[in-house]
Amino acid sequence: MTRSSTQILSPTWIAPVVPKDVLLLGHSLVIEGERIAAILPTAEAQQHYPDAPEVLLPEHLVTPGFVNVHGHAAMALLRGIADDREMMDWLTNWIWPIEGELVNEQFVYDGTRLAALEMMMGGTTCAADTYFFPESAGRAFTDMQFRAQVGMPVLKFGNAWARNEEDHIHKGLAFRDSIKNHSLLTTAFAPHSPYTVSDQGFERIRLYAEQLDLPIHLHLHETATEISEALQESGMRPIERLHKIGIVSPALQAVHMTQLRDDEIQLMATNGVQIAHCPESNMKLASGLCPVQKLRSAGINVAVGTDGAASNNDLDMLQEVRSASLLSKVTSGDATSLSAAQSLESLTINGARYLGLDEHIGSLEPGKLADITSIDLSHPAFQPIYHPVSQLIYTASARDVSHVWINGKPVVEQGKPVSADSDSILAATREWQLRVQSIQANQ
Amino acid sequence: MTRSSTQILSPTWIAPVVPKDVLLLGHSLVIEGERIAAILPTAEAQQHYPDAPEVLLPEHLVTPGFVNVHGHAAMALLRGIADDREMMDWLTNWIWPIEGELVNEQFVYDGTRLAALEMMMGGTTCAADTYFFPESAGRAFTDMQFRAQVGMPVLKFGNAWARNEEDHIHKGLAFRDSIKNHSLLTTAFAPHSPYTVSDQGFERIRLYAEQLDLPIHLHLHETATEISEALQESGMRPIERLHKIGIVSPALQAVHMTQLRDDEIQLMATNGVQIAHCPESNMKLASGLCPVQKLRSAGINVAVGTDGAASNNDLDMLQEVRSASLLSKVTSGDATSLSAAQSLESLTINGARYLGLDEHIGSLEPGKLADITSIDLSHPAFQPIYHPVSQLIYTASARDVSHVWINGKPVVEQGKPVSADSDSILAATREWQLRVQSIQANQ
Repeated sequence: MTRSSTQILSPTWIAPVVPKDVLLLGHSLVIEGERIAAILPTAEAQQHYPDAPEVLLPEHLVTPGFVNVHGHAAMALLRGIADDREMMDWLTNWIWPIEGELVNEQFVYDGTRLAALEMMMGGTTCAADTYFFPESAGRAFTDMQFRAQVGMPVLKFGNAWARNEEDHIHKGLAFRDSIKNHSLLTTAFAPHSPYTVSDQGFERIRLYAEQLDLPIHLHLHETATEISEALQESGMRPIERLHKIGIVSPALQAVHMTQLRDDEIQLMATNGVQIAHCPESNMKLASGLCPVQKLRSAGINVAVGTDGAASNNDLDMLQEVRSASLLSKVTSGDATSLSAAQSLESLTINGARYLGLDEHIGSLEPGKLADITSIDLSHPAFQPIYHPVSQLIYTASARDVSHVWINGKPVVEQGKPVSADSDSILAATREWQLRVQSIQANQ
Repeated sequence: MTRSSTQILSPTWIAPVVPKDVLLLGHSLVIEGERIAAILPTAEAQQHYPDAPEVLLPEHLVTPGFVNVHGHAAMALLRGIADDREMMDWLTNWIWPIEGELVNEQFVYDGTRLAALEMMMGGTTCAADTYFFPESAGRAFTDMQFRAQVGMPVLKFGNAWARNEEDHIHKGLAFRDSIKNHSLLTTAFAPHSPYTVSDQGFERIRLYAEQLDLPIHLHLHETATEISEALQESGMRPIERLHKIGIVSPALQAVHMTQLRDDEIQLMATNGVQIAHCPESNMKLASGLCPVQKLRSAGINVAVGTDGAASNNDLDMLQEVRSASLLSKVTSGDATSLSAAQSLESLTINGARYLGLDEHIGSLEPGKLADITSIDLSHPAFQPIYHPVSQLIYTASARDVSHVWINGKPVVEQGKPVSADSDSILAATREWQLRVQSIQANQ
């Protein structure tokens, strides 16, 4: 490791997340190569690393990079295309027809770059993604220097990427082989939902997931309709059906979970399931309420995701955890629920744990990968600052993020992307917009 | 009117709000003095007003200035002082003791300037305020060139400003006399709540409000505890008690309203009551859910307020209407509830109507006062833009506001305050912070 790759970050505050509830003043964080080397008093950092450039961050709070545990990055190209509609209207009359006409490798590559640009500018350094053409998504995330779990989608219906369940699994495994030991990418099976994957499909997924030690990322109990239709079709609620197939396990990343009975919560806890809470998407589509307070009380790890921009309409993790906190308080009737400190954990270490990456990211500890976000709290809207973490959770949004590092490399400085070619991303976005609009004009 | 006071604003989009659901492209808005002179195609504007300076606003959406219908501006100095606490713990163990020691004319002046600075930088051009020392608040709003309804607070308890109910009313009326025909300020009676004002107090307020044609601004049915304690004390729910006194009338600005039976909603509708919905404060303090969808269906005008920064923790009206929309959708189970277009009305014309100022502000129409907000939608997080108003409501926050005019005068340009002395406001804020912290250290 050469000296030239060493950097000292000197903000006003550091919230390392691990250990819990610590706020450091007058400290600096030292990056060496792609890892965090040390966190120590600023004077000591300057003495130990006299030749390292120091990034001064006055009135900034430095935290671990945010982890967005559920999304469909490429759908950023369909942001706000059909707001204020019921979920099945939105999906069947708007999203699916446009996707049917447009989605291809280039759509996924361009849309994923746009989403990664937005996410890194908003302090997010890692995302769980699931969409078609995972190779294109993986290439986009890699080109953007962005960390991601890129899902291998599985559906029983054919689409532009794969013909049937079998073909999805086959192509997914080929994608998995192509990213082995990648410095930024991991993968997971991503069966779309209980209603779009067969029992045989889930059985094969379980088998491969066990053999290859892969997570299973699944939309589950998202709406009341999903439950009632499953009951009509099979006499079972989706969780019961999946439990019989052996899918309810520590490998499961269960997304949404707005319709849960107490016995189902207990089943999740007993089986060590990871849960992705997407409050803004659930609210915007009127899907229902994820019982976060009960899930946490049962000892379940709950992380937070934005879902795709088409149902949000942004990928702003600060707004998302604020919505999660406020919604949990009012629906549980407990104003102490999901405190600012717990929300910061939801943003970071809970997401890392959900992805099985908590040995590497999710907190600022020496030896961990340097995925770091610095938020500028100098705006009048933050003053006076009694508790910086409160202001982060209850006031800040993506636009307050100033500097971001992924794997030790600066990707955002002074709010501007430094590694990404924004001009080409925005030019591609405009082209896709024209194509979407011409489809709409012809409908 | 001299030519020099004429300005042409040329954004990409104009959403005038009245007429409904109109979005103008290629148009300019002309300000003459303190009023809107015209909205017309840009080429025509340039031809009709050849000497007027033109403010080019590419990729900007221009809307009426936002109206924040409930807050306690000076409490910005207590922002985030005690988060994640139950409302009565928050109020009795944190807010009231600190207020008891610190609140004076200067506190209110300095805190109100800080809040007005934050609000104008976030696109808000008018606010309903209620706190102690209304003269100081009025002076602060005037110095900031900010439009406000400054409440005359009434409580049965003595405090730094007034000794008893009688004294509150007396001092309030003196304040009213001092701001007659003010270009920026109006006033209203602001009895704090049913539990802090006596029947006699409410009767006098009703009498004066009728005589002087003044609104009555009141926290009402904010929590379940308020109702159960009122039932214990008087055998009546607060609305019933107030209705008997004659307070439930078109003069009433009822704030919060989270605990409502259907017959109470009907009573509000029949009596033309104005309602202030403060979703983030209600969520953060776990107060309850205002049934916005039902209120709107009953034909009641519902506007939106941030409440004080101490329970929010910001005064960002864009976040507030987004929270209102998302919360309404998920709690009503109707994803079409509070659409983007309706949310823009909540932000603007509904607030103007609530304040009785809809002849003067709340929409961009020739002849109305030039209270105008321009939001910069060029950030990658907004792209692609299919529907600018959707992106405003579901993605934008205060930091995306670029230019603001109040009464025709620019107060914010390129996101920076141009009329306010931010340095002196922030210096005063730091001094108050030290005083608050020294009180906390001695507790």
